[in-house]
Amino acid sequence: MNKAAINPDLDLVLERQVDVSPDLVWKAWTTPEHLQHWFVPRPWTITACEIDLRPGGIFRTVMRSPEGDEFPNMGCYLEVVPNERLVWTDALLPGYRPAAQPESGAGLLFTAFLYLEAAGTGTRYTAVALHKDPADRQRHADMGFEQGWGTVVDQMVEYIKAQGVKI
Amino acid sequence: MNKAAINPDLDLVLERQVDVSPDLVWKAWTTPEHLQHWFVPRPWTITACEIDLRPGGIFRTVMRSPEGDEFPNMGCYLEVVPNERLVWTDALLPGYRPAAQPESGAGLLFTAFLYLEAAGTGTRYTAVALHKDPADRQRHADMGFEQGWGTVVDQMVEYIKAQGVKI
Repeated sequence: MNKAAINPDLDLVLERQVDVSPDLVWKAWTTPEHLQHWFVPRPWTITACEIDLRPGGIFRTVMRSPEGDEFPNMGCYLEVVPNERLVWTDALLPGYRPAAQPESGAGLLFTAFLYLEAAGTGTRYTAVALHKDPADRQRHADMGFEQGWGTVVDQMVEYIKAQGVKI
Repeated sequence: MNKAAINPDLDLVLERQVDVSPDLVWKAWTTPEHLQHWFVPRPWTITACEIDLRPGGIFRTVMRSPEGDEFPNMGCYLEVVPNERLVWTDALLPGYRPAAQPESGAGLLFTAFLYLEAAGTGTRYTAVALHKDPADRQRHADMGFEQGWGTVVDQMVEYIKAQGVKI
């Protein structure tokens, strides 16, 4: 597997073992009607999601806080390998246009890699966020990268199991 | 062909008909030992070129002015379709890491598309540069995008012809 070149001074990594299969995790990540159920820690909600699952295609979500404030995230996919690898960035808008400024709710530029590997009856789940400098890494960490991305994995697994084999 | 979504307010386009075949143009663009002979208008020179021809791979050149000043360009490929389409950006470093600042000699962020289409015995050659805002477009235009990119097409064709079928 062609993994990201991780620099501990710049990047963040979350690794988890989950007991649902890679294809179900893939569907949960790449289907708007599934993603909206788990993609942000509750009680925040996803109020919009747009996915064009190809390199250069749009990946847009809108997160709403409990107070009703909305935070758009806009980026584009870079690599799409079903059930294995998804890469996207908010440094580029859809169609690869350089972003005028960070349009993510995080307010920072990052490129994210999601890796899925079959492990037993479940999935080895690895998420990586690459940043341009240590300050952005720290900002992302302070925003709760590890807890936030970890919480949504739990929510995703719970959602997938609640759907049974229908997802 | 999946062409760039061009916005005339933000982007620059150069279209040319050249009388060498798409596969020779492709080799000239993607082989460091060929590229260094034509990639910058003379009397500037290319003093270094690094190419890893895959999505996420490095595309680096160093341009040297007649006065001896060197201007590095660092970016990564996004799409590689031999003899047809090459897409790269300096908004991302190799491995898709967001760039800390424009590392191109142009000092601005852009994503470039090169399209090659067989036309008669030659090639329909289209180069597109996408920018984040009208100011960057204008800056790129003022730096001589049309003349510069046009001059290097002439230099490339001349180089290819001088090599004969060996390229």
